[in-house]
Amino acid sequence: MSEPARSDHTRGSLFDPVFGAGDLAPMLSDRAWLTALLDVEVAITRAARHHGRATADDVAAVAAAAGEIARELDPTELGRLSAAGGNPVIPLVKILRERADAPAGAVHVGATSQDVLDTALMVLAHKAGRHVVTDLRTAADAAARLASAHRDTPMVARTLGQQALPTTFGALAATWLVALDDGVTELERALEMLPAQYGGAAGTLAAVYPDGPAFADTLADLLGLARPVVPWHTARTPITRLASALGVATGSVSKAATDVVLMATTEFGEVSEDAPGGSSAMPHKRNPVAAITARAAARRVPGLVATALAAADHEFARAAGAWHAEWETITDLIRLSGGAAHQLSVSLGGLHVHPAALARNLGLTGGAILAEKVTAALAEHTDDARDIVTAAAVAGTPLDRDQSITGHLGADRVRELLDPTRYLGHAGDLVDRAVARHEITKGPA
Amino acid sequence: MSEPARSDHTRGSLFDPVFGAGDLAPMLSDRAWLTALLDVEVAITRAARHHGRATADDVAAVAAAAGEIARELDPTELGRLSAAGGNPVIPLVKILRERADAPAGAVHVGATSQDVLDTALMVLAHKAGRHVVTDLRTAADAAARLASAHRDTPMVARTLGQQALPTTFGALAATWLVALDDGVTELERALEMLPAQYGGAAGTLAAVYPDGPAFADTLADLLGLARPVVPWHTARTPITRLASALGVATGSVSKAATDVVLMATTEFGEVSEDAPGGSSAMPHKRNPVAAITARAAARRVPGLVATALAAADHEFARAAGAWHAEWETITDLIRLSGGAAHQLSVSLGGLHVHPAALARNLGLTGGAILAEKVTAALAEHTDDARDIVTAAAVAGTPLDRDQSITGHLGADRVRELLDPTRYLGHAGDLVDRAVARHEITKGPA
Amino acid sequence: MSEPARSDHTRGSLFDPVFGAGDLAPMLSDRAWLTALLDVEVAITRAARHHGRATADDVAAVAAAAGEIARELDPTELGRLSAAGGNPVIPLVKILRERADAPAGAVHVGATSQDVLDTALMVLAHKAGRHVVTDLRTAADAAARLASAHRDTPMVARTLGQQALPTTFGALAATWLVALDDGVTELERALEMLPAQYGGAAGTLAAVYPDGPAFADTLADLLGLARPVVPWHTARTPITRLASALGVATGSVSKAATDVVLMATTEFGEVSEDAPGGSSAMPHKRNPVAAITARAAARRVPGLVATALAAADHEFARAAGAWHAEWETITDLIRLSGGAAHQLSVSLGGLHVHPAALARNLGLTGGAILAEKVTAALAEHTDDARDIVTAAAVAGTPLDRDQSITGHLGADRVRELLDPTRYLGHAGDLVDRAVARHEITKGPA
Amino acid sequence: MSEPARSDHTRGSLFDPVFGAGDLAPMLSDRAWLTALLDVEVAITRAARHHGRATADDVAAVAAAAGEIARELDPTELGRLSAAGGNPVIPLVKILRERADAPAGAVHVGATSQDVLDTALMVLAHKAGRHVVTDLRTAADAAARLASAHRDTPMVARTLGQQALPTTFGALAATWLVALDDGVTELERALEMLPAQYGGAAGTLAAVYPDGPAFADTLADLLGLARPVVPWHTARTPITRLASALGVATGSVSKAATDVVLMATTEFGEVSEDAPGGSSAMPHKRNPVAAITARAAARRVPGLVATALAAADHEFARAAGAWHAEWETITDLIRLSGGAAHQLSVSLGGLHVHPAALARNLGLTGGAILAEKVTAALAEHTDDARDIVTAAAVAGTPLDRDQSITGHLGADRVRELLDPTRYLGHAGDLVDRAVARHEITKGPA
Repeated sequence: MSEPARSDHTRGSLFDPVFGAGDLAPMLSDRAWLTALLDVEVAITRAARHHGRATADDVAAVAAAAGEIARELDPTELGRLSAAGGNPVIPLVKILRERADAPAGAVHVGATSQDVLDTALMVLAHKAGRHVVTDLRTAADAAARLASAHRDTPMVARTLGQQALPTTFGALAATWLVALDDGVTELERALEMLPAQYGGAAGTLAAVYPDGPAFADTLADLLGLARPVVPWHTARTPITRLASALGVATGSVSKAATDVVLMATTEFGEVSEDAPGGSSAMPHKRNPVAAITARAAARRVPGLVATALAAADHEFARAAGAWHAEWETITDLIRLSGGAAHQLSVSLGGLHVHPAALARNLGLTGGAILAEKVTAALAEHTDDARDIVTAAAVAGTPLDRDQSITGHLGADRVRELLDPTRYLGHAGDLVDRAVARHEITKGPA
Repeated sequence: MSEPARSDHTRGSLFDPVFGAGDLAPMLSDRAWLTALLDVEVAITRAARHHGRATADDVAAVAAAAGEIARELDPTELGRLSAAGGNPVIPLVKILRERADAPAGAVHVGATSQDVLDTALMVLAHKAGRHVVTDLRTAADAAARLASAHRDTPMVARTLGQQALPTTFGALAATWLVALDDGVTELERALEMLPAQYGGAAGTLAAVYPDGPAFADTLADLLGLARPVVPWHTARTPITRLASALGVATGSVSKAATDVVLMATTEFGEVSEDAPGGSSAMPHKRNPVAAITARAAARRVPGLVATALAAADHEFARAAGAWHAEWETITDLIRLSGGAAHQLSVSLGGLHVHPAALARNLGLTGGAILAEKVTAALAEHTDDARDIVTAAAVAGTPLDRDQSITGHLGADRVRELLDPTRYLGHAGDLVDRAVARHEITKGPA
Repeated sequence: MSEPARSDHTRGSLFDPVFGAGDLAPMLSDRAWLTALLDVEVAITRAARHHGRATADDVAAVAAAAGEIARELDPTELGRLSAAGGNPVIPLVKILRERADAPAGAVHVGATSQDVLDTALMVLAHKAGRHVVTDLRTAADAAARLASAHRDTPMVARTLGQQALPTTFGALAATWLVALDDGVTELERALEMLPAQYGGAAGTLAAVYPDGPAFADTLADLLGLARPVVPWHTARTPITRLASALGVATGSVSKAATDVVLMATTEFGEVSEDAPGGSSAMPHKRNPVAAITARAAARRVPGLVATALAAADHEFARAAGAWHAEWETITDLIRLSGGAAHQLSVSLGGLHVHPAALARNLGLTGGAILAEKVTAALAEHTDDARDIVTAAAVAGTPLDRDQSITGHLGADRVRELLDPTRYLGHAGDLVDRAVARHEITKGPA
Repeated sequence: MSEPARSDHTRGSLFDPVFGAGDLAPMLSDRAWLTALLDVEVAITRAARHHGRATADDVAAVAAAAGEIARELDPTELGRLSAAGGNPVIPLVKILRERADAPAGAVHVGATSQDVLDTALMVLAHKAGRHVVTDLRTAADAAARLASAHRDTPMVARTLGQQALPTTFGALAATWLVALDDGVTELERALEMLPAQYGGAAGTLAAVYPDGPAFADTLADLLGLARPVVPWHTARTPITRLASALGVATGSVSKAATDVVLMATTEFGEVSEDAPGGSSAMPHKRNPVAAITARAAARRVPGLVATALAAADHEFARAAGAWHAEWETITDLIRLSGGAAHQLSVSLGGLHVHPAALARNLGLTGGAILAEKVTAALAEHTDDARDIVTAAAVAGTPLDRDQSITGHLGADRVRELLDPTRYLGHAGDLVDRAVARHEITKGPA
């Protein structure tokens, strides 16, 4: 029975669902790679026909063989064959030529291994990247809904971990929103710029002269990729730009996920996820699992971006190592970025906000967070305003009961000054601005 | 004598010139920070005047005091005072208020430390970043000149370290050019998007209500920065986008620098720098120091990008650590990216290309790199074409002297097939395309 | 006036104190580098005398000149001279030879630039690294004191941000302690293994044949460094091991600092630093600045470790870039690791623990965190135990007032089961074990 | 048919063989994880029996059920069940309790999910890590053989890419050897220190009081792991130390692999692999695929080490994200480090060294690399020695034919001075030292 043997050396079944990459996994799996490589080969033959270098029959034969191989070839077998030459395209072209009822010259026309592998990576990245964008957008939509719903729900703003001044939950969610929308913009831009690769063995397109650049454009068009200026065998900006965009987007995910995890702590109690993780031994636990695993996936992204950027030093016309280092790095990056985005979309999509807890925490210092307003008002009456208020704060005396304060301002005025809902500034406006931009970037319905 | 004492704990004098950052250093030094922080404070008072919260006299007084502090305050002293609160803005505002002949309320109007520090970082990044762009453009211009000058100079393309097929030096330089131009595009875009920061203690702009967003826009306009959608205290895409763009651009630098180092090896001997480093003990040494130090600086960039991306998880309204981790990381990133770009501009700007060496290396395999063309031609005469050619290659027999080949094709035809200048494909076209795009992205003169 | 000009391009004055590196900075400054380079040159001449290759007069002359240069040479000037050759040793040897009243052959005997630069880096790392160890030990001592003092102070253990079960503050501090002690062990080991570098221009020690290996040993002995097995010009394990050890130690710092920051939040209120950072505008703020800046410094370490590890691929006998990339990376690593350790030692050294707050938070769930014990006890009476307890927990009914529970167990028994001080397990034992190991690793007084 | 569906979302089949991880993959696969988790659960029940908390029948029943689950449970199914709680232990314990003919209390005794997952990771790391050590040792043995075989084979030493002075191939291989042996030492040490994890839900071992520490020791003994001082739920030095050791070892791999790739270039031609990768289109290509893919795998390691180090900031008693981020990071690290080591062992194990090419390259400068020796000898005759020799070098005149030199020294003497085999210094001694240390560290046969 070949199957148990197979699962004995594969990964992805166990942890991808935990890290939110369950839906993405099939777009980045061994089989997805195999399929993408074959799709590129078929597109090359198709482009060759367009430029008079293959026949319609060739296209049909190559497409048929490719479909058959995509279904039947075990990636394990291809992996085994790939080790000798250091990449899977070499044996795959051999198999395709054997199986296709077409001349050898109608397969892999004018191409080199890197053309096929790079273009396949772009195909995978484009498709899976769109999926990541969708999850980022879903998370941003959820942030927008939370921002709108809690536009005016007071909470305390924390700076450096300490309660600072009042704000609203909406204003906090608005920062999630703008960061996520920025991430979407970066990633969409990077995806739109993913080009086909086609340069031939030396990057000169010599084998298809004089059709080279036109052939490359046709290939790009057939696969829905951007047309390359020149072959980018060793000019890796499409790769580094993509990696960076994923890094930026995932940084935005980590901000929101971190806030959720902190606000969901027992002591804060301000939010809870819709389907928190429990514990059979501890029935009171309500672990914000989606936000936790979003953070976990996100934490693994920066190191991978660094790997992708460091691999940009491709020497000459094909790098001896830097190139190979990109393949799994980029797919891991997409998988983890997408997983993080997905888990955040789950977390925010079902987030329960607890206004009572927000209010309780907002009142925790007994008004000390607005003491500065009392100081300012008091300063119109006495030069010792700051000292008086500080003394009361240190002593723990409620400011509306401290006679050296109320003597000047009256208790009602003090309470009014300490009312957090009267010091929310532009919190609501910021929500409106963020949501308005979100609507714009979403484009027409 | 205070000076030796001072230099006892500072850095930058010794190594910045080595890594190409000599010109950038003053834009990112302690004094540059001090100046930028004060510039932001002055701009805040200026914006306050615009919104009726300070007078013209206040502006004059604050500007005068700031100028005086910028000249006289020792950064060492400010550093010493900064430790207690964890950032330099707290003591600086105190000093400014003491020195300025203006009410306390006219200084740091509605601002929090992070507003000033973030905006100052944007001011530094914008100015120093422009300098990096200039060096990248200079390097790209040099690459364009090399590509044009050697559009048709044959050389061998190496893939995986092995000689593959002919190409031209121009085509190689064209890959440098497109990668560098992509880097310029990324960095310019990120710089244009650097926004002012202005949110007040809690990010709600409460202290200047109802002028908040307008005040932020005024501040941005005064400093030549982008207007923020909302305060980005903890939505750090401006930081992560900048870091990433520097990473992408520097990846492009590393590609060209790596090629120069390899081609300058004694064995390759294909290029040499205009002012190579010598050795008193080894007068024959011609170290391509500019390319070497460009690579060295570039190698330090990806780790810093990872740090910046990982720091995106700012919690709540001001992060307890992630924020502080950005300050030197970003300035180091600019310094090293800029240093790498500068050294590459020096290397390429004075690069000597040696066509004779290129030709010698191109001939090193005695035509084996074009054996495939002979095989193809021979295949029209015999089914054993590949075996015949491979046997000759293994035996080391020049193909134009192998009778089993020349018997079919004739020696002249074989030599023609093996002529590298007849198999350059689109090398020249690729140069033209890359240079044309370079001209376009440079914009009108 | 040369001074303002000088400070215009240096760094370190402003931010090093913030990140805890104020004391370390002079050990890693430009001047420290200059001094270390000269110390190595003097030691080389001293070693040469030991092996009959220089005279006592030579040593005296070289030492005198070196001392003079160390005092008088402006690092800015040396930096300027270093750019041409790509490292400061080339011009420094020239200056030393000019200034020393000794034959040229008595200076830099048999050495190459990398010998001097690498050995100087080891000298700096050894000395500054010892300082980092001291700060780590101080932090560990503080953790040990906290663990002992609060060996039996109950608090709630949080897992995944949620209250889980009782523990003690001592047990938490014990985890800080073991992690810090592990860090000390790693770093001390790496420091002890730092070797002198001495191989000559090609790593063969040819210039001092047949004294090569003995000369290297003498040099190591003179400088208090480890004796090298062979020259390690391009076998960089001393560098990667040091970088890794700093990374491990700093990871331990980050754990404790993170806990302090979280426990110091207004909502938790369980600890406060002795000298928290305040805010003029918000007098109630008590920012745990030492822990915050410890975290900030720590966050910058992993990226630098990655840079150091990635730079291990030194080619041939001296790397064209990878070598240069190490210099500032390693000193930055020491500076930031040491800064983090220092700030943590300050934070823990003066940490105020608030048992009342710990107790308040421990009681926050009204016993729910020990509901499992009630379930277990109830299960001896009914098969529905879990359902009953879960229902009470969901309803928010105190378990000692739920009749379906007290009917079986009695309210007193329930309260006993819910008493956190009766379920601390081995918390105290773990403190004892950790403290005992700490005492052992500290060695005899 | 479930199988194709399954392979649709898994990874590892295709690329692991390319990157040398074919043999390691089954030790780190989803099924390996599943098996390790179950092995830990069985060991926990076994330990429980040892401490009187379970019976022999319980052990038998749990072991039988675990064996059955290990064989039959599809990791895909477990992955699906794991998402809700964020880790696979929660559902696995449920399944084990359902399947085992033993009381629920005899399964997972006193343990929490993290105990099982962490210990399983240690089990995987210990076993797979030993495999990495074996490959590192194999590579080191090959380096030792090469060093010995070519102890006296002259070659040119290159510094900064430029020919510098003569050395031997053996001396170069000796640097590979010492670096690899250092790597072995680091990794073996880290593996020996891998501890079992056992702390219970709060890390206090309360559930098995008073047997806690003894229980933890028993568990460690049963699994062949180190005994923990205290639970290390959030004191992650075992993880960071392991990651670092893998980083150091892989840095050593990258050095040797880089040299092989460079020396195998067509222009250098100094080495070739035993089974180089070919190209159907370019029969002359001899790609050093093993060294290339070793480098590729190695390049991906530093970023992962950074991720592991950055994840050390585990808060409280179980980290909400940092913990989860370790799982795949550590297994990826082992897989890639091991793959790199394996490919290097293949590369070095079959490396063909070409002394003729070494000699040809050594002679490439016509003696210029030893010009300094001529200068030194000439200096005894004239003060213009350096100028004369430099002039000849610049003019390209062979030094033994330059009359201003031979007039003083005689052509024979000049040729003797320029003979590289007379200036190898301690190259042979260094080989002997490195090989001797290698023999020692290998221990008795």
